[in-house]
Amino acid sequence: MTHTAEIICVGTELLLGNVVNTNASEISEALSELGINVYYHTVAGDNPGRLRAAIDIAAARADIIITTGGLGPTCDDLTKQTLADAFDLKMVMHEDQAEHLKKYYFGNLHNAAMTSNNLRQTVFPEGCTIFPNECGTAPGCAFFARGVHVLMLPGPPREMRDMLKKQAVPYLLSLSDYGIHSHVIHVFGMGESLMEDKLHDLMETMTNPTLAPYAKEGEALTRITARTHSPEEAEALMAPVMEEVLKRLGNVVYGVDIPDLESVCVKLLSEKELTLACAESCTGGMLSKRITDVPGASKVFLGGITAYAAAVKEKLLDIPPELISSEGVVSRDVALAMAAGARKALGADLGIGITGLAGPDGDGSEVPVGTVYVALSSADASYCRKLKLGNNRVRTRTIASSHALDMIRRSLTGLPVEAI
Amino acid sequence: MTHTAEIICVGTELLLGNVVNTNASEISEALSELGINVYYHTVAGDNPGRLRAAIDIAAARADIIITTGGLGPTCDDLTKQTLADAFDLKMVMHEDQAEHLKKYYFGNLHNAAMTSNNLRQTVFPEGCTIFPNECGTAPGCAFFARGVHVLMLPGPPREMRDMLKKQAVPYLLSLSDYGIHSHVIHVFGMGESLMEDKLHDLMETMTNPTLAPYAKEGEALTRITARTHSPEEAEALMAPVMEEVLKRLGNVVYGVDIPDLESVCVKLLSEKELTLACAESCTGGMLSKRITDVPGASKVFLGGITAYAAAVKEKLLDIPPELISSEGVVSRDVALAMAAGARKALGADLGIGITGLAGPDGDGSEVPVGTVYVALSSADASYCRKLKLGNNRVRTRTIASSHALDMIRRSLTGLPVEAI
Repeated sequence: MTHTAEIICVGTELLLGNVVNTNASEISEALSELGINVYYHTVAGDNPGRLRAAIDIAAARADIIITTGGLGPTCDDLTKQTLADAFDLKMVMHEDQAEHLKKYYFGNLHNAAMTSNNLRQTVFPEGCTIFPNECGTAPGCAFFARGVHVLMLPGPPREMRDMLKKQAVPYLLSLSDYGIHSHVIHVFGMGESLMEDKLHDLMETMTNPTLAPYAKEGEALTRITARTHSPEEAEALMAPVMEEVLKRLGNVVYGVDIPDLESVCVKLLSEKELTLACAESCTGGMLSKRITDVPGASKVFLGGITAYAAAVKEKLLDIPPELISSEGVVSRDVALAMAAGARKALGADLGIGITGLAGPDGDGSEVPVGTVYVALSSADASYCRKLKLGNNRVRTRTIASSHALDMIRRSLTGLPVEAI
Repeated sequence: MTHTAEIICVGTELLLGNVVNTNASEISEALSELGINVYYHTVAGDNPGRLRAAIDIAAARADIIITTGGLGPTCDDLTKQTLADAFDLKMVMHEDQAEHLKKYYFGNLHNAAMTSNNLRQTVFPEGCTIFPNECGTAPGCAFFARGVHVLMLPGPPREMRDMLKKQAVPYLLSLSDYGIHSHVIHVFGMGESLMEDKLHDLMETMTNPTLAPYAKEGEALTRITARTHSPEEAEALMAPVMEEVLKRLGNVVYGVDIPDLESVCVKLLSEKELTLACAESCTGGMLSKRITDVPGASKVFLGGITAYAAAVKEKLLDIPPELISSEGVVSRDVALAMAAGARKALGADLGIGITGLAGPDGDGSEVPVGTVYVALSSADASYCRKLKLGNNRVRTRTIASSHALDMIRRSLTGLPVEAI
C-alpha cells in the first residue's frame, strides 16, 4: 500500500525565524527514498492547543505523522503529551529510561547536574516503541493508533538525523513490502549542471531505477534508486545503469557509497601504508580537522601545522624569508615549499601546503581575494593547483581543502594530479 | 490590533526535500520584528486541491496569509488562481505588466524567448496591489478580502528576499503600530535544563518581555523579547530583566548579541594585543579551524600544530618522550606540556594544548574514550581541565574545542579558568 506522511515540526524558534527548518527537508528526502508521499509540512509553536489542532488536521489527511522537537526536559516541551491526548493514550513512566538518563548524567557529562525536569524525558505514551537517542538525552518514540503511525524525533538536527537514520527509517521500512535500494556516486571536480548534462537523457527516460543529481558544498552527487521486492532484484536493475554512469563521468568520480573525500584519502593511505602531514594557511586547520573527522585517521595522519603568521611558516616549515618576500606569501612557490616543509618537519610520505586569501579582506597585495594555491609534495614529485574561488570565506576554505584531498586521491590512484 | 499570520510555502521540491525552506524562516524573522504573531508554517506541493485545503485552514485561523512560490510561468504554478478561487475573486489581465514583461524578455534576457505561458504572469486577482519583481520575471501581489490580508511572494529565495524587504514589509508596517525587539544571552558551561531551572520563575510569570531558552551544540542561549511601540520602550522594559538574568547566570555568560565563543576570544585577544597558538591532538585542527573562521583572526592567531602522532608531539612541541611514556599521551602533564610547547614554538602569548580520546576506539590504555585534557599556558600561569565527554567523536571534538575557547575567555577576563 502507498503511505502518505505529514511532517510536523514543533518549536517557537522556527516560527520566530531563529532557526531554519532543515529537519523537514531531511525527513522529506528520506521519505521520498522510501517511496512514501509527503503532502504537507506544518510548523507549530510550543503551544499545546495550536499543536493539537495541527495534529488533528494531519491525522485526518495522512497515515504517517512524523514530528520533530518538543521532547526535551524544559517546560516548553510538550509533543509527547499532546500526541498522547490526541490519540487517547495514557502517559507511562519507563523505569529503564530513567536509569539510562541517570547514568548519562552521572557518567558522561562533566559537572552537569540532572534536574527533576529531566525525568519528563522518561514518560511516554503507553505501548510505544522507544527510539534511543545516541546523541543527546531525549529519546524519541513511535506508536500506531487509529490507523496512524506516529513517530516523534528530537529537534536538534544532529540528534534528529541520527535517530531518523537508525530508528525511524527501519521502522518505516517495516511498513512496506517494497524496499528502496540506492547507490550514491560522489563526484569532485565537475559541477552539478555539467554532470546533469552528461546524464540528462538517462534521467529523463528512466523510471526504475531513477537517477537524481544533487549538489553539496562544491561537490556533486548522483543517486541511483530502485524500488523492488528484494535487494538482489534492485542490484540487478541498478548494475547496468551504474556502469553507464561511471563510464560517462570518468575519473571525477571519487567513490560510490562512501562518506566523503577525506574517508577515501584515509583509506587509500592506510592501504598503501603511507603517512600524511599538512601545512595550512588560509584553511586554518580545516584540512586537518576534516581528515581527523575520520575515525582511524591517526594511523596515517601524523599531524599538521597551521601557519597563519609568516614567521611561523619560516620557523616551523623552514621556508626561506626571501622566497616569501620575492614571490609573495600567496604564491605557487610558497605553497610548494609549505608542502615540502610539512613533509620534512613531520617525517611524512606526503605533504600538503595551502596558502591563499579566504577574505573578506585582501592582504594589501595585488592578489585577489579567493586566490588559493594548493600543493602536494612526495619524495618523487610535487604538484600545485591555482584556484580562483571568489570572496566567500566559508566556501573558499571548504573548496580549497577539498582540492587538497582530491590531489591526494589522484596521486595515490595514478591519475593526473594537477589537472581536473 | 494584534495580527496573526500564517506562512504557506508552495512547491513540490520542498516536500521532496530537495530544497530547504529558508523562505519561511526569513519571513518569520521579518514578521517577528514587526510584532506580528506567526502560529503556523505550512508547506504544500504544486497541487491545486491540497493547496486550496491549506488556504482554507489558514484563512480560518489567521488574518494575514503570506505565500511563497507558484507565481512563475510553468504549468505547476497556480498560487494566484487558487487564492483567487478561495476568496471568490476574478482573475484579470494587467496590460501594463504584459508590456513590462515583453520589455524584460526582449531587453534583459540573453537568448531567452518569451513563450505564451509567460503571459500567465500578467494575470492577477481583481483589485490587488502588484509587487514588482526587481530580481526576476514573476511579480507578487497582495489583496484584502473577507478580513484576511493575502500577500503572494515568489519562490526563489533571492527574489523573495528582495520583494519581502521592498514591498511586503512596508505593506505590513501600515497594518501595525507595534514592533518586536530582542537580545540573546550566550552561555557556556551550564546546560539548558540547569539554566532553565535558574530562570524558571521569570519564564513562567513574564509576558512582556518574555524569556525563552535554547540549546546549541554544547551551549545554551536565552532570548529576551519585548513587544512595544518603540525601540526605546523595549530597551527600558528589557533592561531590568537582562540585569536579573545576568546576575542569576553569573560568569557562564560569555556574551550578549554576539556570534559565538570564537568571536569573543578573537575580540578579547585583539583588544589586549595578545597572540595565540595551539597544539591539538584529538581535536585535530578543529580549534584552529574555529578560530580562523572569524574574519580578522590573522591579527591574533599565529598558528597551530596538529600533533596526532607522538613523534610529532616530541619533535615540534618539544615534549620529553619520558613524559609521554610515564604519564601516558592522554594526561594532564602532556596537555600542559603541549600548551607550553605551542606557546614557545610559535612565540605566542597564550598557548592551548588538547589531548584526548575522541573515539570511537580507545588507544589500548586504561583511559576511557571521551577523556580529554584541555590546557592553557601563559607566561605567568597554566591551567588544565579534565573532561569526560562520552563516546561521540563529533560531540567530543566540538565540546573540547569550546572548553579551550572558554578557558581563553576566562583567563583574559580575570575569571577562574579551571573551574566552570
